[in-house]
Formats: sequence, structure tokens, C-alpha cells
Amino acid sequence: MITDSQIEGWLREDLGHHDVTNEVPGGTSGRLVAKESGVLAGLDAAEAVFEYLDVDVTQSLADGDPVDTGDTVLAVEGAATDVLRGERVAVNIAGHASGIATKTRRAVERANEATAGADSTVEIAATRKTTPGLRGVEKRAVVAGGGDTHRLDLSHMVMVKDNQIAELGLEEAITRFDEQTSFATKIDVEVERVEDAPRAAAAGADIVLLDNMTPGKTHDAVELLAEYETLAEASGGITVEDVPAYAKTGVDVISMGSLTHSAPALDLSFGTGE
Amino acid sequence: MITDSQIEGWLREDLGHHDVTNEVPGGTSGRLVAKESGVLAGLDAAEAVFEYLDVDVTQSLADGDPVDTGDTVLAVEGAATDVLRGERVAVNIAGHASGIATKTRRAVERANEATAGADSTVEIAATRKTTPGLRGVEKRAVVAGGGDTHRLDLSHMVMVKDNQIAELGLEEAITRFDEQTSFATKIDVEVERVEDAPRAAAAGADIVLLDNMTPGKTHDAVELLAEYETLAEASGGITVEDVPAYAKTGVDVISMGSLTHSAPALDLSFGTGE
Amino acid sequence: MITDSQIEGWLREDLGHHDVTNEVPGGTSGRLVAKESGVLAGLDAAEAVFEYLDVDVTQSLADGDPVDTGDTVLAVEGAATDVLRGERVAVNIAGHASGIATKTRRAVERANEATAGADSTVEIAATRKTTPGLRGVEKRAVVAGGGDTHRLDLSHMVMVKDNQIAELGLEEAITRFDEQTSFATKIDVEVERVEDAPRAAAAGADIVLLDNMTPGKTHDAVELLAEYETLAEASGGITVEDVPAYAKTGVDVISMGSLTHSAPALDLSFGTGE
Amino acid sequence: MITDSQIEGWLREDLGHHDVTNEVPGGTSGRLVAKESGVLAGLDAAEAVFEYLDVDVTQSLADGDPVDTGDTVLAVEGAATDVLRGERVAVNIAGHASGIATKTRRAVERANEATAGADSTVEIAATRKTTPGLRGVEKRAVVAGGGDTHRLDLSHMVMVKDNQIAELGLEEAITRFDEQTSFATKIDVEVERVEDAPRAAAAGADIVLLDNMTPGKTHDAVELLAEYETLAEASGGITVEDVPAYAKTGVDVISMGSLTHSAPALDLSFGTGE
Amino acid sequence: MITDSQIEGWLREDLGHHDVTNEVPGGTSGRLVAKESGVLAGLDAAEAVFEYLDVDVTQSLADGDPVDTGDTVLAVEGAATDVLRGERVAVNIAGHASGIATKTRRAVERANEATAGADSTVEIAATRKTTPGLRGVEKRAVVAGGGDTHRLDLSHMVMVKDNQIAELGLEEAITRFDEQTSFATKIDVEVERVEDAPRAAAAGADIVLLDNMTPGKTHDAVELLAEYETLAEASGGITVEDVPAYAKTGVDVISMGSLTHSAPALDLSFGTGE
Amino acid sequence: MITDSQIEGWLREDLGHHDVTNEVPGGTSGRLVAKESGVLAGLDAAEAVFEYLDVDVTQSLADGDPVDTGDTVLAVEGAATDVLRGERVAVNIAGHASGIATKTRRAVERANEATAGADSTVEIAATRKTTPGLRGVEKRAVVAGGGDTHRLDLSHMVMVKDNQIAELGLEEAITRFDEQTSFATKIDVEVERVEDAPRAAAAGADIVLLDNMTPGKTHDAVELLAEYETLAEASGGITVEDVPAYAKTGVDVISMGSLTHSAPALDLSFGTGE
Repeated sequence: MITDSQIEGWLREDLGHHDVTNEVPGGTSGRLVAKESGVLAGLDAAEAVFEYLDVDVTQSLADGDPVDTGDTVLAVEGAATDVLRGERVAVNIAGHASGIATKTRRAVERANEATAGADSTVEIAATRKTTPGLRGVEKRAVVAGGGDTHRLDLSHMVMVKDNQIAELGLEEAITRFDEQTSFATKIDVEVERVEDAPRAAAAGADIVLLDNMTPGKTHDAVELLAEYETLAEASGGITVEDVPAYAKTGVDVISMGSLTHSAPALDLSFGTGE
Repeated sequence: MITDSQIEGWLREDLGHHDVTNEVPGGTSGRLVAKESGVLAGLDAAEAVFEYLDVDVTQSLADGDPVDTGDTVLAVEGAATDVLRGERVAVNIAGHASGIATKTRRAVERANEATAGADSTVEIAATRKTTPGLRGVEKRAVVAGGGDTHRLDLSHMVMVKDNQIAELGLEEAITRFDEQTSFATKIDVEVERVEDAPRAAAAGADIVLLDNMTPGKTHDAVELLAEYETLAEASGGITVEDVPAYAKTGVDVISMGSLTHSAPALDLSFGTGE
Repeated sequence: MITDSQIEGWLREDLGHHDVTNEVPGGTSGRLVAKESGVLAGLDAAEAVFEYLDVDVTQSLADGDPVDTGDTVLAVEGAATDVLRGERVAVNIAGHASGIATKTRRAVERANEATAGADSTVEIAATRKTTPGLRGVEKRAVVAGGGDTHRLDLSHMVMVKDNQIAELGLEEAITRFDEQTSFATKIDVEVERVEDAPRAAAAGADIVLLDNMTPGKTHDAVELLAEYETLAEASGGITVEDVPAYAKTGVDVISMGSLTHSAPALDLSFGTGE
Repeated sequence: MITDSQIEGWLREDLGHHDVTNEVPGGTSGRLVAKESGVLAGLDAAEAVFEYLDVDVTQSLADGDPVDTGDTVLAVEGAATDVLRGERVAVNIAGHASGIATKTRRAVERANEATAGADSTVEIAATRKTTPGLRGVEKRAVVAGGGDTHRLDLSHMVMVKDNQIAELGLEEAITRFDEQTSFATKIDVEVERVEDAPRAAAAGADIVLLDNMTPGKTHDAVELLAEYETLAEASGGITVEDVPAYAKTGVDVISMGSLTHSAPALDLSFGTGE
Repeated sequence: MITDSQIEGWLREDLGHHDVTNEVPGGTSGRLVAKESGVLAGLDAAEAVFEYLDVDVTQSLADGDPVDTGDTVLAVEGAATDVLRGERVAVNIAGHASGIATKTRRAVERANEATAGADSTVEIAATRKTTPGLRGVEKRAVVAGGGDTHRLDLSHMVMVKDNQIAELGLEEAITRFDEQTSFATKIDVEVERVEDAPRAAAAGADIVLLDNMTPGKTHDAVELLAEYETLAEASGGITVEDVPAYAKTGVDVISMGSLTHSAPALDLSFGTGE
Repeated sequence: MITDSQIEGWLREDLGHHDVTNEVPGGTSGRLVAKESGVLAGLDAAEAVFEYLDVDVTQSLADGDPVDTGDTVLAVEGAATDVLRGERVAVNIAGHASGIATKTRRAVERANEATAGADSTVEIAATRKTTPGLRGVEKRAVVAGGGDTHRLDLSHMVMVKDNQIAELGLEEAITRFDEQTSFATKIDVEVERVEDAPRAAAAGADIVLLDNMTPGKTHDAVELLAEYETLAEASGGITVEDVPAYAKTGVDVISMGSLTHSAPALDLSFGTGE
């Protein structure tokens, strides 16, 4: 859900105290159009921007839809001043989210190609490396691209990290968090050595995060985890180019910070009077 | 200025209602470290995140400083729970802003190389294509990279756009905005044809934005503007690779949306107990 | 985490525009004292209220600690006006949260007595039936009382509800949500008939919520679930008095809305100058 | 008045970043129904929750109305996702407020029975012991139950407390506050000894709060106050069971913190598609 | 109480996204100085502005103090950028509030002169005609000037207005509001005819507002009210010049919207490095 | 743009927790009417207040329109409670803004009379001496009165101040700010001596602010500036009465803090059922 106060903050930072440029009488229509191909996301946010300004919106396409150059994404109708005040913010948020969806879709496709014919599939997941203020928008953009949100916030899933393991020992750290955590919460344990993966699984990890391992080591760890219910997650600086190699290791999840922190915006533009 | 309520929103979206992962007794120190080379920005925001959580911060480097792999950016000291709750948000905002500064610096360097020996210089400027919620952080990141903010919001400078010119005629549109606008506000006029550039200048434009012109046409327009005080700005999908060609046309400003909407994050990481 | 803006809202609603009662010169000390026995919670919130007002706080006891009549919970020191302006809000939030912790502790004890000697234990869990605005405070109060938070918000765990099952069929509903949901998220399936419990488990439910069943039927369902990893949860108007009967059925979790929506406040009082 | 930002905070804390459970296509209707008998309150807040989500609401009953098991309180119609996202918050706030109204009504009835035939009546009043964030909702719920709000905030009425009396003397304390206070503001003076009641009245108290006195002593104080215009208020840990005894003393007001801090929620439920 | 979010809003609207003017290295001291004589108010707000920016403040004078040209009001010390960013907002709020206090003091002095030797005194009171967003600051500024806040908000005191009297009849309107209103709340009844004043008093009004009457009629009404406890209030476009004439009528309260909506600011200035 | 959260804050501060006065059944219409002549402003804010409360508004007149006693400004229609809850806030904001517009218009007329027949015109401009929280409303009110906003915030235009000139020297200070400032931002340089005016112009000032100079000195400075493009601004305690003398000096801009900090409200009133 996009809240009114978020929209308000976005508009306020763009308008300032006296916007002369958009003091235009009468009404107008306008269209949000794709200028390159990709995958759409953030349309609820773009729509909410216009609705805050009392501009009517007709959505032609939805989050997750592929889009090509020239496709109309949204059509709007309203007072010219309001349409013009909303357009830049709407394009900025939809372009940003769609860039994330587009990059995610590319990673998903690379993963699917690599595992075609295999009996396992792999999820492409985001991380908590999101742009401050846009956690929800970006996580849902990853879903629009066919990816997995991974944990939404610190309270969604527990991660047992290396420093905690160093202090308490692997099994003890897992046990302790298991006791402190709700039955509703999964536990993801970060390991840096192949041999620790089955230990974590045996101690109750729902997911084992194989941190910064090569595809080869990742594969070894996956094999050792075969007898457990535990999921295997590869993570640590994995790029879209690296996806096929990791996908072939048999991991269940590949998580990538770059989906959210380094996706170029999808090129969208807004035109009025059309 | 980063406000407390911004910081609060960033932390709240990352923490959720019951963060077990970071329930760690005692105190700790930590360091924000560069994992690749680039230019720093957003350090005031990263610092403000920790200060909201009552964690002490020592800044080793400042916005605009170049950084190499392994360099310490910030050192912190505080309750372990607070340090751990702040680290992800601090890394996210500083990495995002530093990515923008780094990309800006690269564009500035390309421009400077291209104009070396010439008697004119060119400014690399951002646009209003910023991430919603981060206008100030991103504009100041562009400055940290050696760029120019361009207009900060709709009220900072008036842009006369094609649809307004279409409706009123170029001279009349400029005159009307000139009357409506404060003496404190500059007027930037967007033209799409070379021959409109001097007309805009003659009619009172402070800046003429040469929209989507080739370097060749841009150069022609710059020549026609030579007799006016008016600045010439090139804009429209210009990439870092395009910068030298435009820089050589003699324009005063090259504005690039990609500085803010498509800069990959700079790789920063945070380690505790070090 | 209690945010400054929450504290600010609590103080503002209690102060109004011109508080004459507390216009008192000089400084004072004060103590938050228990007037009945129970379990403490919400002390971080009480402390944050005073800190917002620049009053120094020394915490004598912590969340989860048992408390008896006369015990000092917090001691404060500051400007008399600030101490007096904070006291009512601090007592209100700590009394409210401690009431929840106290009620939870009682339910936990009843459950433990009932399962003493048995080889299984049972968690007493809250629900989403919390007081609007206090989700985090109340969930953490349940933890202070020895209970389990259950899902923190709609995004923490998926619940498959009766109307979705009615529309799609039980297995299909579970499959669909499984596909839509992150690997990080558990799935809790609500069933109303004993025979649906193993079907839900077979279809992939992490937890099966046995809705409004008698202890007898609950026991039957638990037996049918024995061969699955799936947890069994009893829910639906269960009171503290009902806890032993449900605890003996072998369920893993008993969830109770009344922990948060109907717990009387713990009697705390604040005195100055002591 | 319920503000949008309050509603927004309530919804945000319940939704999180990615609510899959309620991603349901199409529209639906729904009804808020009583599952036990009591008195309604908080319906403006429940309605405002749905309206924030653009769900249409038809109110069947109003604040202050008695309700029996099975009665429909509100009917709604809207997009299924929006209806489902609003229902828990709407039930939580209306159940909480109605619990307060129900408890208040019971106390009022006990008081009326006790004073039946007498020529005086007594008001049942709340205190400032409300749940942080819900002052307005709870005070209006007390009114819905037939009670009196007592002072709404610190600025509404001045209370002269024991520590101020100890420092300045009773008459001097009252005089000082009288000078500092607006003509629009009443003064309530807290006394702990029967003989101080007429002194407070003579010194200008609008109300004398008889603090923690037995019904016998309360009666004595009431008699001493008979010759003044001053109201007599009984306060201090008075339960619903104690109400008749205090009502018979002839006091004008009985104030009870438990109306707001310890009222169990009224059992309301929400069903869709009905 | 001035809240952090208020201060934040004031600073944010003055700073914008990139304040170059105040990018000044090092520390500085500064002083807030009076440039004309008057009465001070709003110093808590001015102080809070600097404290939000981590600038140390030493208050030389307090709200309600008279001040002459050249007097130092506040001294500050901090980072030059922070001092400079706070100064304009601090001067604006203190100048505004002090203007109100100064105008109030003048009205109070005129009233006191007019009633010197008489056995009654008269309060000069504000109204709800305050600047949106500054209710608390302005009401407290009136108190600093020696005036009375009058009702702080709609919930503080009930006003029975002419349209309600027209509909229900005077006595019935008062009775109805008396029933709906807390014992903690006074009732002020607006009358337009002299003969209605004693009727309102007899029906239970705590205050009778004599609306838009000449001093002569006001005096007549005051005489008719002599036998009641009810206070008499003169209101309706009364200027400082009119105060003596109304003060001599024997009314208890003269309320004046112009105290808050039309007081020129007191001239204060801020200098650094002194 | 007036934001919802601003409106909400204005209403909340006026309503309090339990507004009995306006609990009136049924619907009503109402009119905002002028009680004296002047110039209107702030109507968007007044309208937004009613719209937040779901009251329909018909605007009869617009910002900048002259108004006479008895003229209807706005007509509204809605639930009586909502109309009555909005009226005071709507009148307060529109009266405040219209007072500023009215004072500005008077200054503009004095300036126009003084320069009638001359070949130059002069702008009457506001300053940053605005009421905290109302920057946008007040700046737009100045525009409604025919004035100029001057800089909207610290980021809109750079002011080079005396202390910076003292430290760096005039030319160096201007050069430094010129380098730090965007091409989109003008530079206004404050000088206190006539001979510094042309130095500032030569060094690149867009505007030279002639600080606290007599009309005579101002005229001298204007003459020295004649050969530059630079604008001349007179500032420093200039009253409406002083305007003609300064207007005749040939300055381009006269800026006056009193337009915003010391304009009496325009007398507007609201009546229902008409």
C-alpha cells in the first residue's frame, strides 16, 4: 500500500512554494508511455500520485506486464495544473520500479534457461539493500519481475550472522534464535564454509545462506544439504551474468542486492494533450 | 538537511515490529568501508541514521572525497543492538548517494578531458529525474561528484516547455512567464529547432535548453547564441559516453537524468567489532 | 523500536495548548512503582517518553521481570515540569503493556502445568487483534510474558482463510499462495473440519490452524497431523481458563486474541520527590 | 475527529510491505457483526478505516446504540483487497471502543439503580488513564456508554494535586492556580482528608476530588460541601462493583480509570460475501 | 510544548534542498537582540529551533519580560552552518509571538488604567482567531502579555451560538448542551440582546458573551447579571482603543481577535560573531 | 499546494478530543463573506480545509480579486457538523492571507503612483520574514496582491551577506558563491555602502541589495549600477509609507518584511444557513 503521506512527501519535495511553470488554466489529458522495452512495476504508486491530485487515471497495463517502446502504460485526465504537477513524480517512481522489475526479469530468464530440463528450479530474490523510503515499492517491483522478495524487514525472518556464530558457536546460535523466535518466523543461517552447511541444517535452519562461495563450492554445499528439508541460498555480489553458473549448482534461491540498488530506470515519458 | 522524520521512516520500514536478529547485549564498534573505488556522498544521512539511534559517529572522510577499496568511511561506537539496527540503512543511503557522486565524477572528467585547452568549460548537471523521497540527498550527491544540481524543484527555476510554446508562441510564452515570475527566478526555455535558440535568447531566456539535438545541431545553436548572455544547455538522453561530443560543442551545461535515476550503488560494507 | 513521532503524538494528545497544572519551577525526581504483582513490559516506551522530554531515566527492572506491590520500576530525574508532563503517558503505556505481559504469563503457566511431564510443549501466542497504533508494543509485551508474537503483520506470514478455500478448493488455494509467497514466508492454513487438517499438511501448510474446534476435535486433528512436519495451532475464542484443556491436546500453539484486546492494565503509579 | 494520518498509521502497522494474503481479484461486500451484547462506540473510526481504502460504508447502528449477538453494525462494499485489508483494523478499533462503552454503560446503570428515588444523580466519568494514541476515541466511547469524559487533556481543566498543596498550602495553591488559569477553565482540587473538602470549596474549587476515601468518608465530605456550589468527585481505584456504594454517598461524579484502561473488547467479527 | 515535528516543518520550508548560502566552516556564536521595546514571547519555540540543530542556547530573558532596543534575548553557540540555518526561523517565531504579547500588554494596560480605583478588574482575552498551525504558541504569547487564553480549542469550553439559540430557544439550547457536556467544561452563551443576558445566566451559563454591543448596552447587561455568578464577556471587533470604554462597563472579560490575528511582529534581529 | 497533513494539523489543533459545540444533526449551507474591502488570497487553503471535511465548496472569487464589504467569497454545502468544524480554520487562513495580499496591493499602488510617467517600474517583494509553517501560503498571498515572492527559501537564490564579505572580501565572496552555486540560481549581494554596489555588479551579482540606505543613497547607488545588467533592490525596514520615496530612486525591487510579518488580517466572516 502506498500511503497518502508518502505521496505528499514526494510531491512536496518537487513542487516547492510557488510553482509558476504549471500554472496553466483548463483541463488536459495525458499518457505515460514506454520509450524502451522492459517490465512494468510501481504503477500503483504512479496512480496514487495522480489520485492525490484528483486526476483520473485509466491503467492500460499492470505491474508485471512486458512493455515495448511506444506502449501506453497509463492514461490520465484532469486539471492541467494537477496533471503537470503529478507527471514528473509519477514517471520517476514508475521508471524506478520498472527498472527493478526489468532487471529482475532478466535474471529470472537467465536462471530459467540455465535450469531448463533440470528437475529443480531456482528463485531470484532481492535483499534488504533497497533505497531508503522505498522498501515496499522495490520489493513488489521484484515480484513484478518474477522474483522473490526475500525478507521484507528484520522482523520477517531471522538471519543468523557470522559474528553471532563466532561468539556462540553455530549450533548454539541457531538454538538460541530458535527459542527467541516466533513459530511464524523462518531462520536463515549464513555460512562461509561448505562443511558448515549441513551442520546448520541439522541444527534447525530453514534456509542456509552460502555466503560468497564460488559456484563449485556452492554445488558441494547443495549436495551436502540434499538430505535435509533446508533450502540452499547463494548470495554475495552475484551479478546477472553470474546467474547461470549459480543456477546450475542446484541452489533453491539466488539473492542479489543489485536488483534493487543498481537497476537503471526504465525509460518512460509523459505527454499531455494526446 | 536530513530530518529526523526521514530517518525514522527509513528505520521503521527496515525494522518491523519485533527484530530478534539484533537483540544482542553489550556494546560494539563498527566501520563503514569501501569495497570499490569511487566518490563519496550521503555521509550526512548515514551519520544521521546512527545519531538517531544514539550511536557515536566519527567521520573519516567527507562528501566529495575519492575512496578506494578498503578505505574506512565512518567509524561508529554504541550499543550493539543500535549499531546493528542502523548499519543496513546507513549503507543503503551512503551507497546509493555515492553511486550518484561516482557516476557524476566520471561524466565531469570526460567533459573536462574533452574541453581541455578550450577556453570554455561545461557543467554536468542533474535533472528532476530523482528517486521520490530523495531529492535533496541526490542533488547534493551530484554536487559531491563535481556536478551542478540544476533546478532543485519546480519553484526554483521556470522551464518553458514545448506545449506552452505551441499554445502561445515562443516569444509570448517567455514574456508571460517572465511577468509571472519573481526577479529571483531564472527562466530556462526548451527549444527543439536550432533557429529557435536565438529567438528564445532575444525574448529573455536566461538559459536555452537544446532538446534532443545531435552534437552537430547543438554546436550550430551554440554559435547562434554567442551574442547573447544566455546559457546553452544540452539535454535529452545524453549518456556518459556522449558527454565528450556534447562538451566539444561549446554548450555551458549538459544535463543528464541518468546521473540520478540510473547510477549503480557504490559498494560499501559495514563490519562490527573491528 | 519506539519512534519519536509516536512519543510526540502521545504527549501532544495529553498536553493540549496550555498546561498550567504542571508549570512548576525547579527540578524533581520520581519513581514508577508497582501497586500490584505482575509482569513488566513496555518499559522502553515509558523510558522513551521521559527521554523525549529530556528527563534522565534509570531502569531498575526490565521487560519480562516479575514485579510485586511496592517495587520500583523506573527512577527519573529532571525539570519538574518535564517529569510531570511525562508521568501520565509513561504510566499509561507501561501499565497497558504490563497488563498484557501479566495475562500472557498466566496463560503460559496454565499451559506449562497442563503439559508438565508430557514430552511436548505448547506456545501461547497472540493474534492480530491488537490495539490500533500499538502493534509493536503489544507484540513485544506478549514476548515479555513468555508468549509468542504469532504473525506480526499481514506480510509476515500468509494465512489461507475459509473464503479462499471455499472458492479455490483447499489444495489449490494452498498451492496458489505457495507460488505467490516468498521462500522466507510461512503459510498457515485455517481449517474448520478435522479431516481437512492432514489435507492441508499434505498440500504444504507450515502450520494448520484448527479453527473453533473443541479440545476433543483438536486432539483428533493433532493425531492426524502427527506424521507431518506441520505445526498444529488451536484458535478461536480460547480463554485463559480454556488453556489447560487445549494444552493437553498436543497442539503446538494456542493463539488467543484476548491476550492483547482484553487484558486489564497492571496497576502502576508514579510519585515525585521521593 | 479521526485524522487520515491516524488511519494510515493503523493500516501501515498491520499491512507490512507485501501482503499476499489479501491479493484477491474482484469486489466483495462484508458486514461487521456483534458476537455478544453490549454498547457500540468507535464506529466513526471503523468507518474512516474503510473510507481511507475507498470502501463504501453503510452504518446500520450508531455510537451509543445497544447491540445483541448477530446484529449488523456496518455493511461495506468495495474491492475485495481493500475490504480485506481494512477489516482487522476496523474490528480492532470498534471492538476496543465498544468494550469501553459497554463497561461504562454497566457502571452508569449500577449508579442509576443505586440513586433511584434519590433527588440527586451521579455522573460516571473517565480519567486521563487512556491508551496512548487513543485519547479521543476512548473519551468519546465513554460518552457513548453514557459516561462523562472528565478532563480531556492537561489544558482542559486544572487539577491541584497533593504535592502542590503540600508545598504551598491548600488555599494558597488554589489561589495561585486561579490566577494563572483562564476564566474558561475549571479547577478541580484533590483532597485526602474530609476536613479539607470545605476548605477547598471555600477557596474557589469548582470541583473537589475526594481521593481514595471510603464511601463513609466520602459521604461525610459531601455533607460538608452541601453549602457550596462546588461539585464532589469520588476517585481512586473505584470498580464497577464499588459504584453503588459511592453513588449513594451523594457525590456528583465518580471517576474510574478502569473504564478506559481495563475494559475487555466487545466481541465483533467481520464476514465477507454476505 | 513545541514538538520536534513542528520545528522540522519550519526548518524544512526555509531550507530547501541545497542551501549554499550557509555552507560556512567552523563555529560561531550569535545573539538574538531586540530592535524596539515590547514584551517577549515564543522563546521556548526559538530555543527549540536551535536545539533541533544542536546549537547551544542561553536564555537571557523569559516570556513575559519587557524588552528594550538593544537588549539581548538569547545567546547561542554552535556550528556556523547550524546557527545560520536556525536564525531566520527563530527570529520569525519569536518576533511573531512577541508582537502578540506586546499588543496584549498594551490592551491590558489600557484596561487597568480604565478600572484603576474600581473594585472590579477585567481580563483581556484572546479568541480562536489564531494563525493556523500556531494555536499553542499564540495562546501562550497572550498569557505572556498578561492576557487570558480564552478557550484553547472547541473541546475546552462550549459556546452556545446564535443559530443554535434560534433553533432551540435560549433556555432549551443551554439545557441541551449542559447535558451533553462534561462537568469539567464551562458553557459560554452568546447573546445579542441585553435582556437575554439574565435569561442565559438563569439557565446555567457560566459566562455570557455580550456580542457586538455598545459599551452602553454592555453596561446594562452587566447590571442585569449582577445577581448571578455568571461572568460577563464583551466581544465583537473590539480594538485596543475601545478597551477603556468596555473596561469601564464592569464586564469580567474583554475578548479580542485582533490580539492574535492582527498584531505586528516585534522587531528582533540576529547577529553572529558577537 | 496545500497538503492534507497541513490541513489536518490545523483542524486538529482547533478541535480537541470532544467537540460538543458542533454536534449538530443534518446538513447546512454557509458563506464566507467579506466584512471590509481588500484583496483576497489563501482561498485554495480555505477550500482545502472544507474539502478535507467532505464539504462541497463553490468559489465565487479568486486569489487576487478585490473584495468589498458584503461580497461572498466562498459558498459551502455539507453536513452541519463538518461545515461548523471547518469554518473557523477556513476564516483564519483566508483572513490571514488576504491581509497580506491587501497590504501588498497598497504598497504596489503606492509604488505605481510614484513611478507613473517614469520609464521604469518597481517590484514590491516579500522576504523570508514569514510566519513559520505558512511560507507557501504567504508568498502566494504576496503574489495575489501584485507583489513578488523574492526568494522562496534558502536554496532558491544565494544571498551574499555582510559577514561573508567581511571575511573574504566582496569580490572573493561573490566568486566563491558563484562557483558553488548552480547555473539555475541567482546571486543577490547585500551592500551597505554606495560605492560597493558597482563592485558587486562587476563581480557578477545578479541583484545588489542596498541595505538600510536612505532614498538619497539608494538613488546614488542606482545610478552607479546603470551600466550593469544587475538589478537594484532596496531593503531594510521600509514601510508602506516609505514606498514612494524609494520607488522614485529607480530601484528595480523594494523588499519589505512587513508585508508578511505585520499585516493585519482582512476581516472575513462565515455564516451558515444563508
